[in-house]
Amino acid sequence: MSRYLSRRFDGLEEYIPGEQPQDRTYIKLNTNESPYPPSPGVLAAVNTAEVARLNLYSDPDARILTQALAAQYGVEPEHVFLSNGSDDILNFCFLAFCDGGAMFPEVTYGFYPVYAALHGVAYETPPLRPDLSIDPADYCSAGRTVVLANPNAQTGLALPLSDIERIVQSNPDHVMVIDEAYVDFGAESAVELTRQYDNLLVVQTFSKSRSLAGARLGFAIGPAALIADLNRLKFSTNPYNLNRLTQLAGAAALAEQAYYDENCRRIRETRARTRQALLDLGFTCTDSRANFLLASSPAIPGGELYRRLKDRGVLVRHFTDPKIENHVRITIGAPDEMEALLAAVRAILG
Amino acid sequence: MSRYLSRRFDGLEEYIPGEQPQDRTYIKLNTNESPYPPSPGVLAAVNTAEVARLNLYSDPDARILTQALAAQYGVEPEHVFLSNGSDDILNFCFLAFCDGGAMFPEVTYGFYPVYAALHGVAYETPPLRPDLSIDPADYCSAGRTVVLANPNAQTGLALPLSDIERIVQSNPDHVMVIDEAYVDFGAESAVELTRQYDNLLVVQTFSKSRSLAGARLGFAIGPAALIADLNRLKFSTNPYNLNRLTQLAGAAALAEQAYYDENCRRIRETRARTRQALLDLGFTCTDSRANFLLASSPAIPGGELYRRLKDRGVLVRHFTDPKIENHVRITIGAPDEMEALLAAVRAILG
Repeated sequence: MSRYLSRRFDGLEEYIPGEQPQDRTYIKLNTNESPYPPSPGVLAAVNTAEVARLNLYSDPDARILTQALAAQYGVEPEHVFLSNGSDDILNFCFLAFCDGGAMFPEVTYGFYPVYAALHGVAYETPPLRPDLSIDPADYCSAGRTVVLANPNAQTGLALPLSDIERIVQSNPDHVMVIDEAYVDFGAESAVELTRQYDNLLVVQTFSKSRSLAGARLGFAIGPAALIADLNRLKFSTNPYNLNRLTQLAGAAALAEQAYYDENCRRIRETRARTRQALLDLGFTCTDSRANFLLASSPAIPGGELYRRLKDRGVLVRHFTDPKIENHVRITIGAPDEMEALLAAVRAILG
Repeated sequence: MSRYLSRRFDGLEEYIPGEQPQDRTYIKLNTNESPYPPSPGVLAAVNTAEVARLNLYSDPDARILTQALAAQYGVEPEHVFLSNGSDDILNFCFLAFCDGGAMFPEVTYGFYPVYAALHGVAYETPPLRPDLSIDPADYCSAGRTVVLANPNAQTGLALPLSDIERIVQSNPDHVMVIDEAYVDFGAESAVELTRQYDNLLVVQTFSKSRSLAGARLGFAIGPAALIADLNRLKFSTNPYNLNRLTQLAGAAALAEQAYYDENCRRIRETRARTRQALLDLGFTCTDSRANFLLASSPAIPGGELYRRLKDRGVLVRHFTDPKIENHVRITIGAPDEMEALLAAVRAILG
C-alpha cells in the first residue's frame, strides 16, 4: 500500500476470487458457474446493432429490466434494486445498514468479513453446528444486522422460510439481508416475506441459475424505503454501473424462464447423482440445495484432494476455515464434467 | 430514506445524471456521448459466440485489456487500473486518498462533491476566474488532495501540463487526481508525469473519445503503489465489476486507435465550426478542448434557452451553479445535429 492510502484500510485484506489459472485447460468446478449457456433470446438480444449503440450511455434507472423483474416476482418496480452483481449490492448493505454491527455465520460467503472490514463494521460469527448447519436461534434478537446466505455458501444447506421469518421478526430494529445467490437450485425464497417486513431485503443474482456470471447483474427485492436507500448510494457512487448489453441480456433471460428452470432441474439431477457417487466412495457430503457440493473424505485431507485434482486437470475449491478445511467444494457442472471429476477422485483414492 | 439507513447519509444528495426523457425523440446533446459508433473491430469482437460464454465469470484481473492499455500508454501493467467507468475510480479516490480533505474547483464535474459527502471528506472549492478558467496558484501547496478535471467539466478549458506539474510538485504529501475524461479532444495528458511523481494519478474513460459510454469502462494510470491501493479497494468491494463483453470491446477498441483519432479530429472540426456560428450569433463561448461547448447569449438566460431548445427537440444541459447559470452546455454531435441545434437557436433568438 502507498503512504497516501487512508490508514483505516491498514488491516484490510481483500477478497480472493476463485483461481483462474492459465497454464492449461481445466475442468472448472471452482466458481459455481452454470455449465449451460444463456438462453437463445439472450444471444439474439445482444446483437451487432446493439453493440453499435455502445457510444450511448445505458439507462441508469434500467427501467425496462426493472419492470421485467418486478413483473416476474409480482412486485412493483419501486421494490426492485439492480446493480453490478450481487457483490455490489452486498457491499452497499454493509455500507448502509450496519452501524450497529453485523452478524453472519462463521462459515459463509467469504466476502462478508471483507465488506465489514472495509466499512469498519464490527461483526459476530456464530459457529455452525457440527453438521455444518446454521442454528436459527443464534440470530434471533441479534440486536444487529443479520446477513444470511440461504442456501449458505460453502455448505449449500438451506434454512426453511419459517426460520427466516422467526429471525426477521425478532430483529425489528435492524435490517436482515438474505443472500439468495443459490436459491433457485432448491431452497425457499424469502421474497414473499418482504411484503410483510419493512426490514427484510432479499439479494439475488443472474450469475448462477440464469447463466450470466460474465454479464454482472444482481438485484434486490425489498420494502420501497430500503430500495430507495440502496438507490441513494448507487447514485452517489456509480449510477451507470449496468452497461447496455447487460441490461438487454437480463431482460431477455427473464423472458425465457422455462429454459433456466429446466437447467436448474438438470443441475439438481446431476447434483443428486454426483452426491450419491461420492457417498458410495466413502465421502460425507452436505445435503446441498445449491449448485455445488461440500464433500469430505476420511481417506484424504481436503487440501490434498484439491491439489491432486488440480494436477489431474480438475479445479475445485478448498477453504482454509478450520470447520471445512477437510472438505472441498465442487461446483455442479455438466454430466460429463462430473464423470471426469469422479474418475479423478477414484484414481486419487486408488 | 428508511429508518435503517446509517445517519451519516442523512444529508447526502445523490448525483443527478443527464436527463433521458422518453416522451419523444430528441437530438441529444446533453451527456457528452460520441456521435460515432464503436469501431468495426468492437462490433466483431462482441459476437454471438462470446455472448454464449456469459455463463462464465469475467477475468477479475482483466489481464488482456490491462496489457493492451499498458502497451498503448507505454507503461507496465502494474501502472494500470481498470474499473466500471471512471466514476467508479473517482469514487475509490475519494474513499482512499482524502483523509486530509480535498480541493476542486467551484465549477467542475458535479459528482466530486457527492463523493466527498458520501465519504465524509471536507473540501474546498476555489472559485474560477471571471473568464471561467482555473487559477493554478489556488491549488499549489493545497495541503490536501487536489482533484482537477482537465479539460475541466462544464467549461472545457484546459490547463497546460506545466501548471499540472507545478501543482503536483507543491503537494508532495497528498495525491493529485487528474480526471482526463475529455483529454483526447485537445488537451495535454499528464500520463507522462506519472512516471516522475509518486502522488499523481490520471483517470481516463472509454466513454467519450472511444465511443463506449454504454459499455462502462474507465482506467487510471499512475505509480504502482497507488494502483495497488485502488486494486485493494476494488477487490474489497466488487472484483468482477468489468463484464466479459466490456473487456472484449475495450481491447478491440485499443487495436483501432486510428479510427478514434479520426473521430476526435472530426469532433474538433465540428466544435470549431459550431463555436464560430455561436459567436456570430452573439454568444460568448469558452475555448473548449472537450467534446462540448459552454455558451451564453446576452439575449436569453441559460435556463430559458435550455427549455426552449427542449421544446424544439434539442436537449442540451443547463446547470444552476451561479457562475454558469446563464450558460448551456452543448455536446458536439454529428454535423447535421449541430446544424439542427443552430437552426433552433436562430429560431429562438428570432
